[in-house]
Amino acid sequence: MTKPAAAETGTDIRAGTPEPLDAIFRPRSIAVIGASRRRGSIGYEILHNLVEHDFQGVVFPVHPTAKVIHSIKAYPSVLEIPDPVDLAVVVVPYRHVLQVAEECGRKGVRGLVVITAGFREVGGEGVAREEALLAIVHRYGMQLVGPNCMGVINTEPEVSMNATFAPTFPPPGPIGFMSQSGALGVTILDHARELGLGVSMFVSVGNKADVSGNKMIDYWSRDPRTRLIVMYNESFGDPRRFTRLARRVTKEKPILAVKAGRTRTGAKAASSHTGALAGMDVAVDALFEQCGVIRATTLEELFDFAMAFSNQPVPRGDRVAIITNAGGPGILTADACESLGLEIASLTDETRARLRAEVAEEASVQNPVDLIASADAATYRVALDIVLQDPNIDAAIAIFVPPVQVDAGAVAAGIAETVDRHDKTVLGCLMGKKGVQLGVTELKRHSIPAFMFPESAARALAAMCRYRRWRERPLVEPVRFEVDAEGAAQAIASARQDGREQLSLAEVEEVLGAYGIPLAGSRFAATADAAVAAAEELGWPVALKVESAAVVHKTDVGGVRLGLEDEDELRAAFAAIESAVGAGRMEGVRVQRMVESGRETVIGMTNDRLFGPLVMFGLGGIHVEVLGDVAFRIAPVSAIDAAEMVRSLRGYALLAGVRGERAVAFDALEEAILRVSQLVLEFPEIAEMDVNPFLAFPERERCVAVDGRIRLRPTDANDLTGERNA
Amino acid sequence: MTKPAAAETGTDIRAGTPEPLDAIFRPRSIAVIGASRRRGSIGYEILHNLVEHDFQGVVFPVHPTAKVIHSIKAYPSVLEIPDPVDLAVVVVPYRHVLQVAEECGRKGVRGLVVITAGFREVGGEGVAREEALLAIVHRYGMQLVGPNCMGVINTEPEVSMNATFAPTFPPPGPIGFMSQSGALGVTILDHARELGLGVSMFVSVGNKADVSGNKMIDYWSRDPRTRLIVMYNESFGDPRRFTRLARRVTKEKPILAVKAGRTRTGAKAASSHTGALAGMDVAVDALFEQCGVIRATTLEELFDFAMAFSNQPVPRGDRVAIITNAGGPGILTADACESLGLEIASLTDETRARLRAEVAEEASVQNPVDLIASADAATYRVALDIVLQDPNIDAAIAIFVPPVQVDAGAVAAGIAETVDRHDKTVLGCLMGKKGVQLGVTELKRHSIPAFMFPESAARALAAMCRYRRWRERPLVEPVRFEVDAEGAAQAIASARQDGREQLSLAEVEEVLGAYGIPLAGSRFAATADAAVAAAEELGWPVALKVESAAVVHKTDVGGVRLGLEDEDELRAAFAAIESAVGAGRMEGVRVQRMVESGRETVIGMTNDRLFGPLVMFGLGGIHVEVLGDVAFRIAPVSAIDAAEMVRSLRGYALLAGVRGERAVAFDALEEAILRVSQLVLEFPEIAEMDVNPFLAFPERERCVAVDGRIRLRPTDANDLTGERNA
Repeated sequence: MTKPAAAETGTDIRAGTPEPLDAIFRPRSIAVIGASRRRGSIGYEILHNLVEHDFQGVVFPVHPTAKVIHSIKAYPSVLEIPDPVDLAVVVVPYRHVLQVAEECGRKGVRGLVVITAGFREVGGEGVAREEALLAIVHRYGMQLVGPNCMGVINTEPEVSMNATFAPTFPPPGPIGFMSQSGALGVTILDHARELGLGVSMFVSVGNKADVSGNKMIDYWSRDPRTRLIVMYNESFGDPRRFTRLARRVTKEKPILAVKAGRTRTGAKAASSHTGALAGMDVAVDALFEQCGVIRATTLEELFDFAMAFSNQPVPRGDRVAIITNAGGPGILTADACESLGLEIASLTDETRARLRAEVAEEASVQNPVDLIASADAATYRVALDIVLQDPNIDAAIAIFVPPVQVDAGAVAAGIAETVDRHDKTVLGCLMGKKGVQLGVTELKRHSIPAFMFPESAARALAAMCRYRRWRERPLVEPVRFEVDAEGAAQAIASARQDGREQLSLAEVEEVLGAYGIPLAGSRFAATADAAVAAAEELGWPVALKVESAAVVHKTDVGGVRLGLEDEDELRAAFAAIESAVGAGRMEGVRVQRMVESGRETVIGMTNDRLFGPLVMFGLGGIHVEVLGDVAFRIAPVSAIDAAEMVRSLRGYALLAGVRGERAVAFDALEEAILRVSQLVLEFPEIAEMDVNPFLAFPERERCVAVDGRIRLRPTDANDLTGERNA
Repeated sequence: MTKPAAAETGTDIRAGTPEPLDAIFRPRSIAVIGASRRRGSIGYEILHNLVEHDFQGVVFPVHPTAKVIHSIKAYPSVLEIPDPVDLAVVVVPYRHVLQVAEECGRKGVRGLVVITAGFREVGGEGVAREEALLAIVHRYGMQLVGPNCMGVINTEPEVSMNATFAPTFPPPGPIGFMSQSGALGVTILDHARELGLGVSMFVSVGNKADVSGNKMIDYWSRDPRTRLIVMYNESFGDPRRFTRLARRVTKEKPILAVKAGRTRTGAKAASSHTGALAGMDVAVDALFEQCGVIRATTLEELFDFAMAFSNQPVPRGDRVAIITNAGGPGILTADACESLGLEIASLTDETRARLRAEVAEEASVQNPVDLIASADAATYRVALDIVLQDPNIDAAIAIFVPPVQVDAGAVAAGIAETVDRHDKTVLGCLMGKKGVQLGVTELKRHSIPAFMFPESAARALAAMCRYRRWRERPLVEPVRFEVDAEGAAQAIASARQDGREQLSLAEVEEVLGAYGIPLAGSRFAATADAAVAAAEELGWPVALKVESAAVVHKTDVGGVRLGLEDEDELRAAFAAIESAVGAGRMEGVRVQRMVESGRETVIGMTNDRLFGPLVMFGLGGIHVEVLGDVAFRIAPVSAIDAAEMVRSLRGYALLAGVRGERAVAFDALEEAILRVSQLVLEFPEIAEMDVNPFLAFPERERCVAVDGRIRLRPTDANDLTGERNA
């Protein structure tokens, strides 16, 4: 039975629409500018690889003096080539690149692949050189891959182009492979060949001056041969565009990525909780999470995942059967599956009875099914066939440890033949190096991934299930609430007028109120008398919180007193705050009606330099501050994102209710998160904010913010101040 | 410079002491009973392997009828062999095994390796058969490996014995390799050969009827050739003996282990928090933690770790330098190192200046040191040499991604030569499959592990650092406190007399008090009047807690009222409890003096069927119940264990003091844990217990238990009742 692999066939919408990147990936003629007669040099190897792998178009070497290179007639300049040139691969020294690009433009070349290094990556004049190169490219309407890259590959038979200096041409297949690191490119192609990963196109994007990951995703989303996108990233050029793009593309084609991040965020001076908790890596995780990109934690995992996704269909559910001829690896696989959230399915009575009749007496017909060492190809064939028919099973991992007497090749053939007759996901694991090579080859020939270790198979299967959950998730547009943006703008303007970046609590209340996030009622009071009057008006008991531009964390300095029941207690508390903070440093206090204790939560936002506003949700108090139990998403946050944020906390059960408590009103929490997301997008001048605590109750209408902080960007930091994206 | 690998040379204390296991591993003559003339059969392959790998003693095939097998004279029975036989490898059908063993005993054979399956692993009469076999072995004072195993190997040149049916003989080296799975044995030997892992001995222990992991560890601890022990376990026979043994051996020789555990503990009906939180895997983790065994989470990791430990010395500290010729892999490595707790060291100014003078202009001389793609063998040699001289550096990971123009073999030779001149730990990572094979071979020849992926190198280095911390940790004996064991025994006896398994709070108070764990003062009161009287005596405010044999979690049923300030409040609370629990179901209430709120912690114990008492420590309330933030150790808990338990919690900062709070008295907490450990060891009839909450304060003397539960084992469950290990 032919079954679509996880990398499903996309629709070819290219017919009719011209694809600018075809200039790079489907040229009919290529000039290698800087071609060399010296074997081992890059200028020779590229020319050699094009010819060696039978590029279907014409190749023109360009060299200042040589008349012939690698038996092909050479030209002193691209301008001298009598025929049209679609693509130029440039390997001249960096000081000649601009002139060469200019000549290519004049020649009518449509695509440039600049291998040469010495641009932005070296800083200084390299940056200027890259900008000048880009200007030429734009002036002539060319496409540019690089500079500082290792080239491009298209395995399409009608193109068959290896325009890299890597010796390895990968087998053709569904994977669009993008590497930001040129050096790793060679390794990637090596592994692709070794693991039998079929590649449609490969691109080493280098400095990404023009063609970036985003352009490639967009291009591959419309390329029918590319059904799986695999990326090695070191940085993101435009994460917001990436989000929009990937969110759509991943619904049709899986994107796998490994991202070299940063664990330590350095001495990032963040004054808000949210800021302190948000590292670069948190943002990348949030980004991938929100757009369905499957993140591999290591390079090895990236290859393992690619092997599974490119060969097998996405399982329809999380229920796994394990078939093995050795108990130990079966247990290891079951352990790994369970800890990754997969379900070790129970086989039906019928399946067990059918297995019983077919396998050795000592075999186990529970899942993991242990066929014991005597199992041969016939045993595997019949057992796998029975298991795959079980309606409780969505996927299977077939493990084979070669005993002396059994032929691994035959067992693999048995597995392969059975898998072909079913449409369920099957991953193979042939353990050991010697003696199983035939089996591995056999499985690969039948598009069954062959892992060497059972845990790798389990991880790959779990990644496929993660992807399935993403694909099943509806694609929802961010909600937009009716708000009083004008009111919020006025409160922000009033802080700006005073030259303050920190909003007063009154202003915070106005802004949050304008965006539909209720803040418990409060009054400002400069004196103890005024505070008493305010308390009478709000109703006892009340809380006092210091108002002072000098104080950020009010609790830390003894600036908060709670549960004041009457005038005496209030006056004592006022005096205590004054003496703790220093009378000269405080403007007064905020008198706030005490809210009965609900579940404390925190909703916050910090701005990532690259990713923009990161919205945070966490459980209040120690959960955020000590345990770091928080969830981040990049704004805009969708309703599903918000629901996932709440549910992803380790302490989620505290919100859902422990020991018979009622659950809090999740819809109110989620709405508050969405409103914060809308607020920070519509007021980019907000640098960071915390709504802390936001108290959650079982009753929606009782949920309320009790305190909040909003800090604006410095006015001179950028030109966003006061400008609003409505 | 010759440097000792992590697997250090042990002392040979064997001289003079006879080693029973030498009968298995250093025989002068071997009978292969069940030898076969049929190539491919196990009986043939074992004979063939012995001869093929030049066993230095004499081999005698035994076969009922054949006169010659594999060109060697065969005998109809071991009794007919005219010379002495040290070891018999038995591959006859299982129904003949007992008779063969008997004959071996009579012949004076000292060691048996029974390959044959069909014993305990098949259940039923197989169990009886194994017991009969063991009886014969004991009667004749023989040693037995197996049954149901794949044999043994000793690579010692004077022995050179491959008594397995695996085709691969591993290279000689420092690793004692034990596999519980016969099937995996073949794979293990394959990998050892492929990765160049040097093996001293290999044993497939099979059903472990006699020779177990513990016996092997003990034997290898005295074998000077074995300097690293690597184990694949599926079960533990005697975890307590394992603990005692491994704790000592790991101080000299590292033990690496992968344990196939169970993630889901099934529907284990545990009524205590501790019981519910403790899975099998928690026990294994605790076991390994407490005796310095380095646990690998996957088979692949096990091999990676073995490669590092067997070749390189343990780093003196956690400070790592990374040297690379490509930025991306350098970042990936730094990420992996940091997330594993290693430190990406800062190079000294001098190192940076010296590097600057030697490397390319575009190279980075910060850590990770990026020599860029042009780096050749000479660059690696000089840069690595400079970096290894840096006093800030304890270890280095050298990464090489092969560019076209640079020869991987030469670079590897440069790395190797430099490493040889230093005594710091260096792990290599040569990325890619093709083109680096020469380099990999070169590194291995110089005992430098060569990983394919940078994250694998980082994980292996982190494991070495973990081992160093263990080895530096002093080996302390468990403290024993002076206690009133008789008092505790009486309280337990009183519950037994009433036929109760659950101790009353009064009894719990007596037991804990007898073991020096203070419990806040309390009185039992059957009526509201009695409760008022008790409160007057203890001092207000008080708490009321229901006393009822029917109630386990008092809070859940509304059986606890706190902070009662006066008689009116107390009477109201009493009535409320009565109506909540039902007057008929309660015996009365316990009146307890309210303790000012400290940090709530929980100390508990549950019994693991195999591992015995597991002591738990956690932060109270939601931390234990919802977040599962707890630490386990197997009793006896040492002082260092207790300190580690407290410090390993995610919420540790709450105890150490957040936002200027004072730290709690850790010594009081740790002492309470140690006293619980002593209590549960001295009273094995305690099935499970919780001290919950145990309130911690900055002042040692204020720390106090507020409530506790102790449940005894059912009297008919075992014979431990009332019997005490003093």
